[in-house]
Amino acid sequence: MTEDNSERDRLNTLMRESVQGFTAYVGFTPVLLEPGRCEAIIDIAPHHLQQDGYVHAGVITTLADHAAGYAAYSLAPPGTRILSVEFKINLLAPGDGTRLICRSKVLKPGRRILVVVSEVFVEADGEEKMVAKALLTMAAVPADRLKPAKNC
Amino acid sequence: MTEDNSERDRLNTLMRESVQGFTAYVGFTPVLLEPGRCEAIIDIAPHHLQQDGYVHAGVITTLADHAAGYAAYSLAPPGTRILSVEFKINLLAPGDGTRLICRSKVLKPGRRILVVVSEVFVEADGEEKMVAKALLTMAAVPADRLKPAKNC
Amino acid sequence: MTEDNSERDRLNTLMRESVQGFTAYVGFTPVLLEPGRCEAIIDIAPHHLQQDGYVHAGVITTLADHAAGYAAYSLAPPGTRILSVEFKINLLAPGDGTRLICRSKVLKPGRRILVVVSEVFVEADGEEKMVAKALLTMAAVPADRLKPAKNC
Amino acid sequence: MTEDNSERDRLNTLMRESVQGFTAYVGFTPVLLEPGRCEAIIDIAPHHLQQDGYVHAGVITTLADHAAGYAAYSLAPPGTRILSVEFKINLLAPGDGTRLICRSKVLKPGRRILVVVSEVFVEADGEEKMVAKALLTMAAVPADRLKPAKNC
Repeated sequence: MTEDNSERDRLNTLMRESVQGFTAYVGFTPVLLEPGRCEAIIDIAPHHLQQDGYVHAGVITTLADHAAGYAAYSLAPPGTRILSVEFKINLLAPGDGTRLICRSKVLKPGRRILVVVSEVFVEADGEEKMVAKALLTMAAVPADRLKPAKNC
Repeated sequence: MTEDNSERDRLNTLMRESVQGFTAYVGFTPVLLEPGRCEAIIDIAPHHLQQDGYVHAGVITTLADHAAGYAAYSLAPPGTRILSVEFKINLLAPGDGTRLICRSKVLKPGRRILVVVSEVFVEADGEEKMVAKALLTMAAVPADRLKPAKNC
Repeated sequence: MTEDNSERDRLNTLMRESVQGFTAYVGFTPVLLEPGRCEAIIDIAPHHLQQDGYVHAGVITTLADHAAGYAAYSLAPPGTRILSVEFKINLLAPGDGTRLICRSKVLKPGRRILVVVSEVFVEADGEEKMVAKALLTMAAVPADRLKPAKNC
Repeated sequence: MTEDNSERDRLNTLMRESVQGFTAYVGFTPVLLEPGRCEAIIDIAPHHLQQDGYVHAGVITTLADHAAGYAAYSLAPPGTRILSVEFKINLLAPGDGTRLICRSKVLKPGRRILVVVSEVFVEADGEEKMVAKALLTMAAVPADRLKPAKNC
């Protein structure tokens, strides 16, 4: 197997891994993962809405954070796991449409700290409109330093 | 009915309204709403977790944002709706436990802009540990300026 | 005078106004102001540095905030003043060079709230390197609602 | 010399070091440094103001960032230097008074990443009013990994 294939396999494995637990529940669907870039969508359903009928900020943020995390994963040193350190998101317009699309790009790679930008768009009547922009800080943490979770 | 009862009724109505669509789906449960303060919980289930078994940042953020929104609602001028303008959240420790607890407090009320602080804790083995702190900007928007949503 | 000239005059007046008080003290120099865009520089001097010899985050932030404010001013309704509501900035690399350059662009205009992105670069040996990226929320406030300052 | 004295000496040295370059220029004056906490002031002068006569957001931010940095320094591992990774600040009220006071507290210490909260107050007519709240992420970086700065 060539090196290119092995890199593509690694990215495909990451894409599959990105859909589980909360992200599977919310409908997160990755559509592209390249070194430093991730694109993902959520098809909007009634359970994504808030009290005024718009997509809840929590859905938009989950998408922006998770796609950013996998954009970071694509560049992270082998043997590390990505954790969100912090992020800031501006909600630019109410989410009103049929699909959310997120495009995340690593702005600054690093061995320990990676800074990522996510832009989230809503698709309505065949048009895209930006609904959120986020600036996120991710940490690459050696896998053996993560304590096993005992949740639930 | 006294004015106090009417205010309590208004807050109770807001608490009921806070659970619908995405927040009902995620398990958001308000436990307290007073002028300028909201407390809410989410009982952690497998569908809240991320790839390493910790609570997903999207769940923590949804809780921090939504409780903050209702803390703002409790002080918003009559006839207005609350929309999140932006927020920033620091994830301080992995979410590992049985319950998330969020305490939100309005730091700066205003007719148009309200600034709120949310602190999110995880409960594990009877102890609380802070897992996130957020600083959020909310807008009070006249209800008649919100366009009807056509989502999904 | 044509409308274009009058708009250019307005922007030129704003550019002159942008240099006074703290920004004059710090060396803020606007080089371009167009509707929705501002570019400004600071020539780095010893009084801009911090304890390790890099440009202080406060200088970078002042530049990012002030240029963003004037990008917002260029689009603000007549009779309003711009105030910073909040911002978030990621410091991506130590500031080490001879000049800071900031490019600010309005991401989302609005009558009351404007969201702006600022990117700050350091120039060293003829090359530009991004040292910071900021996401800023500005408010357009009717001038007659600002109380006269009594500072100092 | 007792251990307590040596720790006090270390903190006193840090306090002196905190005033140099940009912070000396701006008038930053530390008044307290304890493990995990820093308090500092700036006496407001005409060169701190913006176009409407209020203290410039850049002054408030410089104070919030620098005091936070030294709160982090007080807990940082020996041989490390503190760099600001990112921060977010909400400007809550116009700065109008005679003195700025900042109180910074480490919310989450760590070997590499420290999260700090800064609150900035303005003193006017003997009263304190909160003008800003910031949430900041600091990195403790081994001193020998910092490249010597060649600025100016």
